[in-house]
Amino acid sequence: MKGKFYMGLDVGGSKISAALVDTKGQMSLLRRQSTPPDGKLAQELLIEMGQGLQEHADAGGATIVGVGMGFGGPVDYPSQRVRRSHHTEGWDINLPLAQTVGEQLGLPTRIDNDANTAALGEALFGAGKGKERILYINVGTGIGGALVRNQQIYHGAHSNAGEIGHCIVQKDGPECACGHRGCLEALASGTAMGQAAVRALEENPDIETSLKNVPREEITGELVGDMAVEGDELCRRIVAEAADWLALAAANACNLWDPDAVIIGGGVSSTGETLMEPLRESFRRYATSPQNEETDLYIARLGYDAGVIGAAALALTTL
Amino acid sequence: MKGKFYMGLDVGGSKISAALVDTKGQMSLLRRQSTPPDGKLAQELLIEMGQGLQEHADAGGATIVGVGMGFGGPVDYPSQRVRRSHHTEGWDINLPLAQTVGEQLGLPTRIDNDANTAALGEALFGAGKGKERILYINVGTGIGGALVRNQQIYHGAHSNAGEIGHCIVQKDGPECACGHRGCLEALASGTAMGQAAVRALEENPDIETSLKNVPREEITGELVGDMAVEGDELCRRIVAEAADWLALAAANACNLWDPDAVIIGGGVSSTGETLMEPLRESFRRYATSPQNEETDLYIARLGYDAGVIGAAALALTTL
Repeated sequence: MKGKFYMGLDVGGSKISAALVDTKGQMSLLRRQSTPPDGKLAQELLIEMGQGLQEHADAGGATIVGVGMGFGGPVDYPSQRVRRSHHTEGWDINLPLAQTVGEQLGLPTRIDNDANTAALGEALFGAGKGKERILYINVGTGIGGALVRNQQIYHGAHSNAGEIGHCIVQKDGPECACGHRGCLEALASGTAMGQAAVRALEENPDIETSLKNVPREEITGELVGDMAVEGDELCRRIVAEAADWLALAAANACNLWDPDAVIIGGGVSSTGETLMEPLRESFRRYATSPQNEETDLYIARLGYDAGVIGAAALALTTL
Repeated sequence: MKGKFYMGLDVGGSKISAALVDTKGQMSLLRRQSTPPDGKLAQELLIEMGQGLQEHADAGGATIVGVGMGFGGPVDYPSQRVRRSHHTEGWDINLPLAQTVGEQLGLPTRIDNDANTAALGEALFGAGKGKERILYINVGTGIGGALVRNQQIYHGAHSNAGEIGHCIVQKDGPECACGHRGCLEALASGTAMGQAAVRALEENPDIETSLKNVPREEITGELVGDMAVEGDELCRRIVAEAADWLALAAANACNLWDPDAVIIGGGVSSTGETLMEPLRESFRRYATSPQNEETDLYIARLGYDAGVIGAAALALTTL
């Protein structure tokens, strides 16, 4: 391997991924490890993984221009600090993680929230390629999001822009993990879909569904999504209901920020058209003209790799 | 009068306003006339008013750098064309109004939607002075809005950004003029407040309120606002309910675009703290941290003059 590369480091609650990415978004030397259940250990592993990539690059005669990091929690972008981690203990509040990693690796380093970096990955190399303004919605256990314009993440006044998951779509609706009621996340996240399935089974134990013999604690949003793709009717209905709330929130966001495209990423993207078909239909109904006809809705294209490619894209676009 | 001025032309459904505005936002020679009920006549009047201002400026030795126009209907900003007028007949679809007025007056001319220009006026010379990112919400008969960053209006992909009035805050809620259900406009506009008062009187004819002896057709949002300021309890409750919906929509917009400040303008701004007190309280409840503590909510400061000052501000910032 020769030429210019950017190092992407993606720090999630369960996995840390690291790779070298070229200027066209192609990955080399992808590594994935479980995130240690302690922030200090996680930082050590992160640096170890980065040094491993450096050694390979050096041996091959490649140049690493800089490091981009995506972090699974709130990041204050102007100060380049991690505010806190939702996942694990041992992450200091206001941790200067970009600085620490940059100093250890001897490379310029930038950090951002992982929904932002995934959005940037899709904007540069995925479903948003060539679009000026992108609203990215990440639907996994929770719901995050990001606004990207001209290949730059828009952060807002408190580095909190794009947080569509906590837009309230049903006043006095179901309680959200954030403490509010009726957030999009409480109605359309993977967690909400899993809960909806359990509720449906409790309300109607005779319902026709392949989930019937699955232990309740194993019914997750991921499973509901998989079963929906395989045609299970209950699961399809649950996915369509989540899609309807997602469409409403997306239509509202289009009234406000009027993007060229909306991209749905995260774990839910594996449901593909099973999600996107009802989502597009509801969006046409809720959105205003001309967005209802002209704004494109896409499923994310980079899949699980959006995180690490997007992290490298952060380095590529800002360093 | 000597020195540099910008001409502001504000074309509303009922009035056309024209003035010269200096670089500090001070108006001279303000003129207001009723909007003729025909687009052709309105355009003639507009040019006549502009020429009148030019003559005065010439006589006084002042220089008019350019013309800014605010139009009470959708404007396609990149092409500088009026899409249509909601108010009156005789406005062509895709009318190149900026070009026509500019040619007639012999001055460079820019046009934008009047909620956008009012927002720009507040951003430069009003409640938003010194703030980087402003969400402006115009509550009058309808609800419009705008996003301003670094003294530039953000238009979005279809010149439709900032249209918070058509964000759906109550799925399957009351019908909106746009044909959708549960838009903010259908729940919190002046029109909605007037209708809420009429409904309350119909449901409970014995209710204690000074609106009791007002003919139903004279009960407008404006009157409800005035009576609320004077302490009428029913009217205060109606204003507080509208404020709650406005707060929810504003909190959602802050999750998405994370502005430094939210400014409430339009006719409703005359209710002042009667509106803003419940609005701030609800906003703290619906918004996410740190926006719930840190995002400032202001009432607009330029009042009825925001339109014409903002129109001039468009010329000032873009020509």
